[in-house]
Order: sequence, then C-alpha cells, then structure tokens
Amino acid sequence: MRASTIHGHKDIRVEDVPDPVVRRPTDAVVRVTHACICGSDLLGYRSTAPRGNSQRTGHEFIGVVEAVGADVVGVRPGDRVVAPFCWSDGSCPHCAAGVHTSCPRGGFFGQPGSDGGHGEAVRVPFADGTLVAVPDSDVPATALLALSDVMGTGHHAARCAGVRPGATVAVIGDGAVGLCGVLAARRLGAERIIVVSRHADRAAVAVKFGATDVVTERGGHAVEAVHELTHGLGAEAVLGAAGTGEAMHTALAVARDGGAIGFVGVPHDGNEGVDFRQMFRRNVALRGGIAPVRAYLPELLADVLAGRLDPSPVFDLTVSLEDVAEGYAAMDERRAIKTLIRF
Amino acid sequence: MRASTIHGHKDIRVEDVPDPVVRRPTDAVVRVTHACICGSDLLGYRSTAPRGNSQRTGHEFIGVVEAVGADVVGVRPGDRVVAPFCWSDGSCPHCAAGVHTSCPRGGFFGQPGSDGGHGEAVRVPFADGTLVAVPDSDVPATALLALSDVMGTGHHAARCAGVRPGATVAVIGDGAVGLCGVLAARRLGAERIIVVSRHADRAAVAVKFGATDVVTERGGHAVEAVHELTHGLGAEAVLGAAGTGEAMHTALAVARDGGAIGFVGVPHDGNEGVDFRQMFRRNVALRGGIAPVRAYLPELLADVLAGRLDPSPVFDLTVSLEDVAEGYAAMDERRAIKTLIRF
Repeated sequence: MRASTIHGHKDIRVEDVPDPVVRRPTDAVVRVTHACICGSDLLGYRSTAPRGNSQRTGHEFIGVVEAVGADVVGVRPGDRVVAPFCWSDGSCPHCAAGVHTSCPRGGFFGQPGSDGGHGEAVRVPFADGTLVAVPDSDVPATALLALSDVMGTGHHAARCAGVRPGATVAVIGDGAVGLCGVLAARRLGAERIIVVSRHADRAAVAVKFGATDVVTERGGHAVEAVHELTHGLGAEAVLGAAGTGEAMHTALAVARDGGAIGFVGVPHDGNEGVDFRQMFRRNVALRGGIAPVRAYLPELLADVLAGRLDPSPVFDLTVSLEDVAEGYAAMDERRAIKTLIRF
Repeated sequence: MRASTIHGHKDIRVEDVPDPVVRRPTDAVVRVTHACICGSDLLGYRSTAPRGNSQRTGHEFIGVVEAVGADVVGVRPGDRVVAPFCWSDGSCPHCAAGVHTSCPRGGFFGQPGSDGGHGEAVRVPFADGTLVAVPDSDVPATALLALSDVMGTGHHAARCAGVRPGATVAVIGDGAVGLCGVLAARRLGAERIIVVSRHADRAAVAVKFGATDVVTERGGHAVEAVHELTHGLGAEAVLGAAGTGEAMHTALAVARDGGAIGFVGVPHDGNEGVDFRQMFRRNVALRGGIAPVRAYLPELLADVLAGRLDPSPVFDLTVSLEDVAEGYAAMDERRAIKTLIRF
C-alpha cells in the first residue's frame, strides 16, 4: 500500500510499504478514508533530528474496519470508525480514569514501529480500547475526522481551563486547536470568548465558532487588549493552544487571578514562559497535557451525530495522499490552517 | 505597646511601638490574645536582605475588637475575632470570587507600614472585609488561631489538589501546613492519606489528623515508597506544602497521571523542580498559591465551633511575646513544629 514517511528535515515522501495485517488477537486493520495533518506533525517536519528509515507520519484518521483479530468484540469488518491519535487498551486503571494517553500499553500512531494515519491502511492495536464505531449518518466526514484529535484536544483545553456556563474565556493560539477550543468553550456555555488572532481567515472561523471578541495585537499589546475587554480582570479560563514560551507567557498574563490555564500545545521551550511565582501569587492554575481524546469521543461524537457540533471549517486545504508533502508545506508556511488528506 | 520587629538576619526584637489607632473609617483595632509563628515568617527570619527600621513581624492572630471606625458594621468592640493573614476589602470582584489574596486594596499583616500579628494590638484595615467574629464557645483558642492561616492554607492545598471522597492523597511536607493538609484531606473525605515525614513527632500528629500511611524515606526512595503503596499509580491528589524545588519534584513524581498538585508552599527556587514537559505528558495539574483564607473561614469556623475540627496539635511550643525570638529559633532549628505566642 502507499503511505507517507518522513526521512529528515521537511523531507516527506509517499512510498510503497507492506500492507498492514492483524498481528495480535486484539488488533484491527482499518482502511483509511480521510486523514489530516496536525500542528504537532509540523514539529517533526521541522525537526533536524536524524530519523530511522521510513518512519510513518500522521495520527489523525477515520476509516472502515477491514479485519479484526480473534479477541476483538467492539468493532466488525465494515464498521466506520474514528480512531483517536493514541491507541490504548481500554482496561487499565488510567483508561478507566479517562487518562487513556497514560495507558502503559498505549502508543501514538506514527511512532517508530507503528503505522501512521497518513497511509491507505493502519494496524490498530487494542482495537476495542481504541476505536469508536460510528453509526450510519449524513454528517460530514470532516466533522468525524476532527474528533480524532483536534476537536478533542480543543475540548481538553476548555475542560482543563474549567470553562463553565457564563465564563469569560481567552484563547491563545488561532491554529486549528485554538479554533476548536473556541468551539468547545461555546459548547460548554462560555458567555464571552476572546480569541487572540492576527490572521483574518482564522479569526473568521473563530467568530463562526462562537468567538465574541478578536484581539489582533501581539504580546504585551494583546495582554492589554484582553484586560481592557475584561474590566482589568482578565479571563478566568485561558486556553493555551500554542506550545511556545511566548504563548504561555501571554496565557498567564491574561488569566484572571484565581483562574486556570488549560494547556494543550506541545511545549517547545521547556519551562520558559511559565512563571511559577506569578502563578503562586495570583492563584492561577495550570492544567492540561496530551489530550485523552478517547475519553471524550462518545460525548463529542453524540453532538456531531445530532448536528450540534461541526468543526469542519478548520479544514481549508485538501490534498491527495500523493501530495501530502504539499499539505505539510502549506501548513508550515501558514497558507493553510489544517490540511485534509483524501484517499 | 510591645511588638516584635525584625532588623536583619535572625534579628528579632521586642520593642515599644506606638499604640495602633483607627485611622480610616473602615479600620478596626484588635487587642491580640493569641498569635503564632508561620513557616513563611522563617523566610524573612533567614533572609539576609537589608530591612527598614522596625518592620513588624507576624500575620497570624486572634483577638478582641477594641475600637472600630465609623463605617464598620460587621464587628463591634468586645467581639472576639479571627483575622486571616491578609486584609481585603470584601467588596471587589476578587473578594467576591473568593480570591481575597488578590484584592487590590488588600495587604499582608507585617508588611512594611502595617502592624504585625506579633504585637499587643493590630490596626486592621477593611475590618468588615477582613475580620470574622466568633460567637461565645468553649473551643480552644488554638483551634481558632489556626484558622488565621495554617488550617486555611492546608485546606487550600487540599481543595487545589482536588481531594474528593475516596481519594488517595499524598502530602509532601510535614510542617504545620502539611499536617493541616492531612486534616483537610480527611475532612474532605480522602480514603488514603500518605504523608512523607522523617520526624517521628510530626508523623504522630499526622496520624492523629488522619494519615493512613507514613513514608519515612527521602527523595527518590520516598517516591518509590508512595508508588508501592498505590499499586504503581501514585496519588491523584498531592499536597505540596513545602516550597522547595526538591519538594515540587517529589510532588510531581508521586502524582498519579491525570491528577493534580495543590501547592501552597512559598516557592523558594523559582521554577526549579517543576518539569513542565512531564506535567504535559502525564496530564498532571498544578493549582495553588497564597491561600485565600478569608474565603474558607466561615466553613472551617463552623466545623471548629461544632467540635468537628481541631488543628490545635500543630502547636507544640508556647512562648510569651517577650520571648518571641526563641519561638523563631525553635522553629528554625526544627525543635518546634509551630510556636504559639501568649499575651
């Protein structure tokens, strides 16, 4: 089959690779129908670290089950499924507690030795603990695809920031995760949603998703603008969708005392930007991490199926698998918010 | 009147100072009946920073109202009162939200220009927003005194760590705050409370307060011991009562993935010990700060008055005001957990 592989700095290729097969009784093989490129894929794309041969790429995909191992009972061949970006056994204490990303038998699609989402098919370990079957419906495939990562990650940011009905929320980062954070905050009942965005196209999606205010300034000026919009108090819930030190610094500066930052952007710079003493003085909490998307899939899927939730507008470029490198380049150069891969 | 003042490194004196008077219509003057020394007082005691003349010390006290300004309606002369360690106006958005420590008109007793708790009387700004009157009762004065800081701070740690009925809790730090954290965790319904303590006298108080397990090891061995006690998972709620980098490092290491650290120890070392990437990978939250004790006073006072809560055992040394320097030295040298000052 064909699949995307990464060989070095900005070196993405599409190659012939072996067809995946059921290796363990808990595996499924899923034929991919739609996949997409994640902001975190760009970290690998931009990295200059040496790579093993033919490491697969991608961790966001939906598809149709093609084969299952003898022990799989939750999905059957022919089922349409959403896969979260991590597999997990579904039975350990971490999975039971909804922290599937900490499952000791879990892993990330695209990690060395596993299939990636950017290929024609994927071997899914622990299919029962990982895949969620989707009943027949007319909802757009893009809405389902977004549940594999970006929508669940935006929801995780909102949950970790403690968004409640009536809340004032600030969203730092106008990438696809930040935009889904806006959507998640609205879904959780936020009254005011301030998004910091310097890109008109992204701000437009944010407004469509429920943002009430767009701050177009940067850095200190953005902080001032958020304070002006909030009577000098800041936002009690801040969604940190970008992992840079600058973004964390801004997130803390716009947080209301006693509030919380829900952070889901992969940290680029270690502790930079996190001022522990300021957090202490102002009682600002920091909660977040790799989103346990599997835990959120049932409730988010129910809303998608009911037509109450549609993150599809985050996709603004579509490429075929053979052109996946162009999809990466477009996101890297900020020509696209998020790239959909069609099969 | 007589009051304790600090002049430099470990230089505590008791001096004659002017009697406090009502300066503003929102002030009260409180005659101090009991005060105590805080672990955070030791930070100033040990500091080698230069000091202004006659800076007062202390921020934990209870007493009797002696005089009130014309605008004070909540307390009257003769009322027995508990003062939290910060004054606050009680009317700003931060006070309304229960984050009294962020009140823009607030301050700390003992800060330059204010009276300290270690004196015969104290001018209390914003008496209505600050003081809580105590009805006549037979409960020990020490139980009331602990509500001025240490019990509320232990409760803040437990709340920030998300202690719930049935929870497994680890408490890092066996000072008075850590011990009150044990008591708070038990009060909130924790099922298992593991305290890390290398001092038999403190561990004994912890057990009296509800600790189910005492870990006497240090550093990495303490972490291993907590993991052994928790089936390798760690504690979902960790109370970080000490502000050192080592304590924060231990707190993170014993936290269960998806759990939270409630931190109330004044940070000594900046960001040291806080591994942001590990928090991200394991979804461990960090929530805490200066405890808004005023917010918790009504519910904790109700439990003290009902005989359901008594943090008195944290006091294991009593000195007179004239001997307050010995009270500091005893805590500094770990000869005492917490020093009570009698007037």
